[in-house]
Amino acid sequence: MNDPLLAELARIVGPAHVLADGDLSAWEQDWRKRARGKALAVVRPGSTPEVAAVVKACAAAGHALVPQGGNTGLVVGGIPDGSGTQVVLSLQRMQRVRSLDADNLTVTVEAGCILQQLQQAAEAAGLLFPLSLAAEGSCTIGGNLATNAGGTQVLRYGNARDLCLGLEVVTPQGEVWDGLSGLRKDNTGYDLRDLFIGSEGTLGIITAATLKLYPQPAATLTAWAAVPSMDAAVRLLTLARERLAAGLTGFEVMGRFALSLVVRHFPQLRVPFSEDAQEAAAPWGVLLELADTESEGHARAQLEALLEAALDEGCAVDAVVAESLAQARELWHVRESIPLAQAEEGLNIKHDIALPISRIPAYCEETGALLAREIEGVRLVTFGHLGDGNLHYNVQAPEGADGREFLRTQEDRINALVYEQVRRYEGSISAEHGVGALKAETLPDYKPAVALGLMRAIKQALDPQGLMNPGKVLAG
Amino acid sequence: MNDPLLAELARIVGPAHVLADGDLSAWEQDWRKRARGKALAVVRPGSTPEVAAVVKACAAAGHALVPQGGNTGLVVGGIPDGSGTQVVLSLQRMQRVRSLDADNLTVTVEAGCILQQLQQAAEAAGLLFPLSLAAEGSCTIGGNLATNAGGTQVLRYGNARDLCLGLEVVTPQGEVWDGLSGLRKDNTGYDLRDLFIGSEGTLGIITAATLKLYPQPAATLTAWAAVPSMDAAVRLLTLARERLAAGLTGFEVMGRFALSLVVRHFPQLRVPFSEDAQEAAAPWGVLLELADTESEGHARAQLEALLEAALDEGCAVDAVVAESLAQARELWHVRESIPLAQAEEGLNIKHDIALPISRIPAYCEETGALLAREIEGVRLVTFGHLGDGNLHYNVQAPEGADGREFLRTQEDRINALVYEQVRRYEGSISAEHGVGALKAETLPDYKPAVALGLMRAIKQALDPQGLMNPGKVLAG
Repeated sequence: MNDPLLAELARIVGPAHVLADGDLSAWEQDWRKRARGKALAVVRPGSTPEVAAVVKACAAAGHALVPQGGNTGLVVGGIPDGSGTQVVLSLQRMQRVRSLDADNLTVTVEAGCILQQLQQAAEAAGLLFPLSLAAEGSCTIGGNLATNAGGTQVLRYGNARDLCLGLEVVTPQGEVWDGLSGLRKDNTGYDLRDLFIGSEGTLGIITAATLKLYPQPAATLTAWAAVPSMDAAVRLLTLARERLAAGLTGFEVMGRFALSLVVRHFPQLRVPFSEDAQEAAAPWGVLLELADTESEGHARAQLEALLEAALDEGCAVDAVVAESLAQARELWHVRESIPLAQAEEGLNIKHDIALPISRIPAYCEETGALLAREIEGVRLVTFGHLGDGNLHYNVQAPEGADGREFLRTQEDRINALVYEQVRRYEGSISAEHGVGALKAETLPDYKPAVALGLMRAIKQALDPQGLMNPGKVLAG
Repeated sequence: MNDPLLAELARIVGPAHVLADGDLSAWEQDWRKRARGKALAVVRPGSTPEVAAVVKACAAAGHALVPQGGNTGLVVGGIPDGSGTQVVLSLQRMQRVRSLDADNLTVTVEAGCILQQLQQAAEAAGLLFPLSLAAEGSCTIGGNLATNAGGTQVLRYGNARDLCLGLEVVTPQGEVWDGLSGLRKDNTGYDLRDLFIGSEGTLGIITAATLKLYPQPAATLTAWAAVPSMDAAVRLLTLARERLAAGLTGFEVMGRFALSLVVRHFPQLRVPFSEDAQEAAAPWGVLLELADTESEGHARAQLEALLEAALDEGCAVDAVVAESLAQARELWHVRESIPLAQAEEGLNIKHDIALPISRIPAYCEETGALLAREIEGVRLVTFGHLGDGNLHYNVQAPEGADGREFLRTQEDRINALVYEQVRRYEGSISAEHGVGALKAETLPDYKPAVALGLMRAIKQALDPQGLMNPGKVLAG
């Protein structure tokens, strides 16, 4: 630790928690392995005052900080650049559940708490913390908040933002804002909480949060519907919202080709209605989840009545309700296996887009036709959270083509085509994954200049030295 | 119009929409008649480009702007100061519903749209816009968003903030940010929407918004429970949330003295369980509302089962479910008559506080005892949205005492006592009414300095001239 900054950091957090030598790839390499940075050091504070002291030390030395949680982000938002000058501030040691208030339905946790551990802490108190996403076994709640994570329960409970009542944040000046709050209403000034949520560590470091809890439902049921068109899927969604209201906790759509990849690469999984004839009649699958406060019997009656109505109205051609928890898990497993099956099939170009739900059928039809015209044999892996208007609209090379070559020659062109379509349909080029470094350069092409100007003014006001996760969200 | 600014404004919006002479009290006087300002002029633009041009003209001339909707605010946030130099920008002419998208469950409206008209536009499409509050016949959606208004449906649907997907805003520089969006997910940068919501016109002028709609429930039922203590009311709330989940759309609590004022001043209203013996056993009344997607029969069975369980567990001593819509309206009418009955009784000191729900029983007991010790015979009018942890904790002079004299001698002392208690219980001194000019001077005593510093930095960055509603939220 010859560097005076490293010596100072070691003094603050203890020498064991400043990592500057050896293999730092766990912190320097992003989860999808799209980029690899080089850190001056990884520092792992154990408390909020230590975070504040680290920030002050780095600010005094003029070194940039990159906050990091579980490093499971998908947009290269949590790793350092290649300069070797940035300090990775890992929140992983700050895992404590500070308090849980059952009557107020709130829990206060430190930023490094793993999402799954938080879910389990709630469950142990007989309550539900509903945020749920693929990386829940290793992502942290701090990262979830910094990126305003989504997942499969957003339709009912909202994004990470909607689940948060208060934050503790270390500012770029190393001050601690204690905005932890168990209040559901507080109109005493600007909404700092929501400004830090989703800012991807560029305005300050979230060190703790007070989050909403919910009573556990009495029963949760899952169904699968085979649907003749995206238009029918939207009609089924409307019907489900009318009949189930807030009981509808999940509504996922999966395209025929996406499901065929699961059949191909995970033959042990049973994909409903995947025979050729069935597929032709119903090119989309829909996974529905209903949470009920009364009983499983009531839930089943509700769900069956919905599906009967859907069959009558022609917005589903076939449907099945899971008979057991195991069967429900199997259906979800199919949905969750799509990204893995796609990876098995080869490299592909991913898009995490949001659209007004009403415009998704036309978007899909038109964009699919445009892509097919541009690239013969192109294959679309379309799936996602239709209830939130959020599609993972991924583009796979033609059968047999080389994925790497496809990315090299087509990625920019396909991105431009897809994003231009998203703009035409008044959508967003990042629904739930954020901007990070991956989309920071692209963002100005699709975000109004006035909005970017406001963002830059806020960034400049809060972080005038520009030391908080530079190059993320706002390109340099 | 000799003043060159007024001439310029008349050129922009038309001479008929610049009011500088005559009685301007409708714009200069706040709703509760606590303050009266003096405007240079009232300007009433008819479109967003006109708003932008007005802002540019005022900025060029160095005149401050005070945006105003229905002028129903309770914290002196929408009227000019006494200098005679500020321009009131009234959004009242911008009332249009621009579009409604039933499949996306969204509506886009201009800021001056009256809340009730918006509710009716949704209803005409067979949908629900759930924001509901006492002033809905005259308040505007722009004002609702600028103050992040609450009301009686927050428990289920959230505040105005939670109902908004996107905004159109004119910045202090007179630029138009088109952030209108029908998207439920959009992680492309800082949350500008929520920054403008609740900023009370101090960062820019909201000119339009895209808002969430919901399917209409099949049935809505109302019940009244007589409750032996505030602690029992909290237990009843927990029970109701467990059993009804999102079906529980309202949970209002009303203290015995508050209800006795309704009995005294509105003898034509039937207040349930208001005989002396009943009141002694149950010093609190609770109004519950259940919205059900199935049927009235299902709703009634659910609500009756809940109330039976509550009686069994001792968190209610008596209860009644409204038998008809008329009876339900009558129960709500009792609740809504409390502020009017209190006004009939004389002047009083109002507090709009939020607390963690779990701590409300102890807060009420301790604060009530403190006040009784300080002021012999003091009377507490306590009522509000217990489901949101939001109490209107109002203090009335002793029986027979002069209200004006009571306010003159006691208001500062009582405010200090109540707010100090709110601080001790980790609450907020403004739950849903905002800060305005009324609480701007007080806020720094109860808000962390770091938060205020962040707010001032944002204000300075976005409105460096300090011309947007100066003196509101942040004192000069």
